[in-house]
Amino acid sequence: MMSLFIFLEIHVGCTEDVISWIRVPSDVREQYLKIKASGLKLQLCTNETQATRENFVRKLRAMGFDISVAEVTAPAPAACRLLKERGLRPHLLVHDDLVPEFAEIDKTNPNCVVLGDAAENFTYANLNEAFRLLIGMEKPVLISLGKGRYYKETDGLKLDVGAYMKALEYACDVQAEVVGKPAKRFFESALAELGVPPEQAIMIGDDIVNDVGGAQQCGMRALQVRTGKYRPSDENHPEVKPDAYVNNLAEAVDIILQHL
Amino acid sequence: MMSLFIFLEIHVGCTEDVISWIRVPSDVREQYLKIKASGLKLQLCTNETQATRENFVRKLRAMGFDISVAEVTAPAPAACRLLKERGLRPHLLVHDDLVPEFAEIDKTNPNCVVLGDAAENFTYANLNEAFRLLIGMEKPVLISLGKGRYYKETDGLKLDVGAYMKALEYACDVQAEVVGKPAKRFFESALAELGVPPEQAIMIGDDIVNDVGGAQQCGMRALQVRTGKYRPSDENHPEVKPDAYVNNLAEAVDIILQHL
Repeated sequence: MMSLFIFLEIHVGCTEDVISWIRVPSDVREQYLKIKASGLKLQLCTNETQATRENFVRKLRAMGFDISVAEVTAPAPAACRLLKERGLRPHLLVHDDLVPEFAEIDKTNPNCVVLGDAAENFTYANLNEAFRLLIGMEKPVLISLGKGRYYKETDGLKLDVGAYMKALEYACDVQAEVVGKPAKRFFESALAELGVPPEQAIMIGDDIVNDVGGAQQCGMRALQVRTGKYRPSDENHPEVKPDAYVNNLAEAVDIILQHL
Repeated sequence: MMSLFIFLEIHVGCTEDVISWIRVPSDVREQYLKIKASGLKLQLCTNETQATRENFVRKLRAMGFDISVAEVTAPAPAACRLLKERGLRPHLLVHDDLVPEFAEIDKTNPNCVVLGDAAENFTYANLNEAFRLLIGMEKPVLISLGKGRYYKETDGLKLDVGAYMKALEYACDVQAEVVGKPAKRFFESALAELGVPPEQAIMIGDDIVNDVGGAQQCGMRALQVRTGKYRPSDENHPEVKPDAYVNNLAEAVDIILQHL
């Protein structure tokens, strides 16, 4: 049996520490168990930046997923690798719960700004502080953990990190470096960490650009599920064409298992 | 003598209600008096959106300017005209001190968002509220009182309204309508209100794009002063070429008076 990695888009929604839903794809746990039973390897890919991977995994375990931190790919660890590679010391404008991911990173005398979905930390004062640091740099470096426009929580829609990224980009006349999906480096660093060549990995996701486009850019195959964020108009996307469409996650897993 | 209107860029900085400076151009009051004495008409043009014109004029009067509200052109009154013309009912995300400018505007059941330099009102909650209203509209209408990137106050640089405009534009996939300088309609509505044809008006300002470019777009002549925001690189601007450069406001006024 070839060693096949399945990369799965996942998002855990929660409100007031009560886990309320897994958004995409549906019936994730059942399919997760089926993949595990088949001997295939699975990696969960999330753009979640409101919590550490530890926290994310803790929630999933509470929901019956027998999963470890190493099986989750998320933007913050990818950002840490980039910071270390380039000797960057970040000023963090992120959610309080994400800060521990940067515990081992030198944050003194910052020479870049790392922006995540800071939620309640997106205050006027905090945004001005991040802006002043950036505009004061000879060559401003803005690293964004994602570029989402907005997301839904139980109490309504919220502006996502991408909106604040655009605000700082405009004010500083700088282009942010995005480390979350669909950035090529997000998938590349996950593959490198796992030691898997891209041709042995398949991405399954509902987002035509972030999941499918991002994975294909680094040589992976990618399936789009017709659930969650999927819209029929995705099938006429001018730039991204999935390797296949599947009606749901169960169908994706069946097809993959049949082809082994 | 021909009836000549001089449009003058002006910005009053203040901190904790203490008027601290007039930024651009220097020696405004002396030149202001000289213009008045010559019989020319003067209109002050500001992108100020943190205070009503009444407030702005009160500060100027305290500084020795014998000026009335009608002699000030500012974005909020221009926005009110636009709202009335198009039957728009705004949700306001502006500075508390600007709200009275919209006193006569129907704000029930909003069908657009008006964005100003809201300063401390740029909270996470207020931005989400404005965003939700916009994204819930069949065709979102975002009206911005300016598109400045940032400005300086005594306690440091602050993000200006343009940065927050970009955040909402990106999140809602919409293009804002800007009513402050350099918008053509800013100058047009001032000319219309005064009943002055553009060829009888001259703009004097320090900002190559906002002052000079905006005024020229609606047929006015425009002088750039080599003070304030002026940078030598402005003289190689790819799109805007002033009708003349002057070293300062005094020189501009001298030249104009000589040519009468």
